[in-house]
Amino acid sequence: MQEISSYREAFIAHMNSKVSVKEPENLYEPISYILNLGGKRLRPILVLMATEIFGEDYTKGLDAALAVEVFHNFSLVHDDIMDDAPLRRGKDTVHEKWDLNTGILSGDAMLINAYQLFENYDGSTFKELAKLFTKTAIEVCEGQQYDIDFETRDDVTIPEYLKMIEFKTAVLVGAALQMGAIVANAEDSCKDKIYEFGCLLGLAFQLQDDYLDAFGDPKTFGKQVGGDIIENKKTFLYLKAIENSTKEDAKQLEHLYSLSPKRPENKIETVKTIFENSGASELTRQEIEKYTKKAFECLDHISISEDKKKGLIEFGNILMNRTV
Amino acid sequence: MQEISSYREAFIAHMNSKVSVKEPENLYEPISYILNLGGKRLRPILVLMATEIFGEDYTKGLDAALAVEVFHNFSLVHDDIMDDAPLRRGKDTVHEKWDLNTGILSGDAMLINAYQLFENYDGSTFKELAKLFTKTAIEVCEGQQYDIDFETRDDVTIPEYLKMIEFKTAVLVGAALQMGAIVANAEDSCKDKIYEFGCLLGLAFQLQDDYLDAFGDPKTFGKQVGGDIIENKKTFLYLKAIENSTKEDAKQLEHLYSLSPKRPENKIETVKTIFENSGASELTRQEIEKYTKKAFECLDHISISEDKKKGLIEFGNILMNRTV
Repeated sequence: MQEISSYREAFIAHMNSKVSVKEPENLYEPISYILNLGGKRLRPILVLMATEIFGEDYTKGLDAALAVEVFHNFSLVHDDIMDDAPLRRGKDTVHEKWDLNTGILSGDAMLINAYQLFENYDGSTFKELAKLFTKTAIEVCEGQQYDIDFETRDDVTIPEYLKMIEFKTAVLVGAALQMGAIVANAEDSCKDKIYEFGCLLGLAFQLQDDYLDAFGDPKTFGKQVGGDIIENKKTFLYLKAIENSTKEDAKQLEHLYSLSPKRPENKIETVKTIFENSGASELTRQEIEKYTKKAFECLDHISISEDKKKGLIEFGNILMNRTV
Repeated sequence: MQEISSYREAFIAHMNSKVSVKEPENLYEPISYILNLGGKRLRPILVLMATEIFGEDYTKGLDAALAVEVFHNFSLVHDDIMDDAPLRRGKDTVHEKWDLNTGILSGDAMLINAYQLFENYDGSTFKELAKLFTKTAIEVCEGQQYDIDFETRDDVTIPEYLKMIEFKTAVLVGAALQMGAIVANAEDSCKDKIYEFGCLLGLAFQLQDDYLDAFGDPKTFGKQVGGDIIENKKTFLYLKAIENSTKEDAKQLEHLYSLSPKRPENKIETVKTIFENSGASELTRQEIEKYTKKAFECLDHISISEDKKKGLIEFGNILMNRTV
C-alpha cells in the first residue's frame, strides 16, 4: 500500500496530463479552473486504494479516479448555481467568474467527459463501471432534489433525511471504492462489501459534517461554523432536537428557524443550547459512532490481508478525526 | 420497411412504457412533461429505420431511439435556459413552468438517463453505443458553445459557421442512424457511410432552416418567419450576404444587425432585399442542394437493397420538402 499522499500526487499528475484547455476555450477553461481549485481528492484516492487493495496496480485505476473527480466537480458547479453560491474553496464559483450559461454548459460537458474516461477500460469492465456510475449519478441528482424539496417542507422525517444524505453524498464514496474493485476484477461479494463500507463511512462523514457545523472548531472546520443554523438548514441535529425536545423548546427552535437575523450570534447560541439540552448533540455523536463502527465491520467480510484492511481503517480514521 | 408513421407510433408507445413519474416527483415530472410536448420524433425514427435497414428487427432499436430523444430533449431544456426562451413547441419551457434549478437538475438527470437506456444492449454493443453517444454529446456541447461565442464576434467565417451547425445539429442526426447500424451489427463501412449520410442531411436541413427563416411560408414554417433577422443572428444567409454584397450594402447590413427595432417589419424587408440582391439567397439554395445531393450519394456506397435506399431517400425528401 502507498501513502495517501502518494496516491494524491499520482492522481494530480494524471489529472494534469489529461485535462487541458482546447477549443472552444470558453467551454474548457472553466473545467480546468474548477478541477484545479484544489480539494482533498478523497474520492479519487479511494478509487486508487481499492484498485491496489484488490490486487491490481493502482495506476490502472487512474482514469476511473479522474471520472469520479470530474463528476464530483460537475455536481459542485451545478449545485453552486442552484445554491447561488459566490465562493467555492475560497475562490469564485464558475457561474460567478464567468456566467450562468457557462456554468450550465461546462457542467454538462464534465458529466459527459466522466463517461468518456471509462472508455480506456475493456468492454465488460467498461460496462460495469458505466452502469455503476449511472446508478450513482442518478442517485446524486435525486439526493439534490430531495435536499431542495426539504427546504420548503416542515415534516421531513429522520429516515427521509438519512436517505437524502446517502444519495447526495454517501453513494459516491461507495461507488469510488467499488470502481477500484471493478478495475481490479475483485469477487462480486468484495465489490458489494467495499461499496457498503464506503456508503456507511460517507454517511458517518456527512453526519459529522452536520455536527461540526454547530460544534466544530472554527480553526480546523473548513467552513463557517454555524452556517447551517444561519441558513435554517434542517440537518440531523435539528431533526433530532425537534424529536427529543420539550414542546416549548421545539416551538422555540421552529420559530428560530423561521428567522434570518442580520447578527446571528444569539440565534446560534440559543440553537446550540437546545441541541445540547435535548440530547440531540449526544444522539448525533452516537449515530456517527454507530455508522463508523458498521462501516469498519464490513471489512471483516472482505478477504484481503490485515495490512490492507489497516490502510482502509487508517483512511477512515483520518477522515473522521477532523476534530471530534 | 415500415411506414414512417408506424415507426413513430411504436416509438411513442415505447417511450410511454419507459418514462414514468416516480419519486422525487419534482425531478421526474419535468422530464415527462418535456418528452410529451410532442415534436416530430425525427431522430428516434432514424434509429429505428437504420436498425431495420441493416437487417435487424426494428424493435431492437427502441432503447437507443429513446436515448437519442431523451438526449435531444435534455439539450432543449438546457438551451432554453441559456436562450432565456419562454416557450417550446407553444408551451412553457421547463425553467418557466418550474424554475431555473428544476431545469438544470432535470436536464442533468435526462443526460444520465440516456446512458442508462443503452444498458439493455450487451457488452460490446453497449460500449460502441455509449462511445458514439459520448463523442456526439460532447460535440453538441461544443457546438452550443461556438453558437454562444459567435453572438459576440463579428469575424465569424463561413467554415466556422458550418462547423458550428454540424456540431450543434447535424452530428446527432448522423449518430441516430449509426446507432441503428450498431444495433443491427452492420459492417463498419456501412456504419461510417450512414453516419455521413445523416450528417450531410442534417447540415442541409439546418441551412434550409436558416433559409426558410427569411424566405419561408409563414403558414408552413413552424417558427416565426424573420426570427433570426429580429435576433440579429448571423446565419449562413447573413455571412454569405456580407461576403458577396457591395461595400455599401454590407455596411448597411452590419448596421441593421446592430439594431433591435420595436417594429421590425422594415428591417426584415430591407435585409431580405440585400439577401436577394447579393446573391446570398441563391447561393444558400445551391448549398442546400449540394449537401442534399452529397447525402444521397453516400447511399451508393452502402450495400443495402434498392428498396431500403428508397426508404431513406423518401425520408430525406420529406425532411427537405417542407416548402422550398
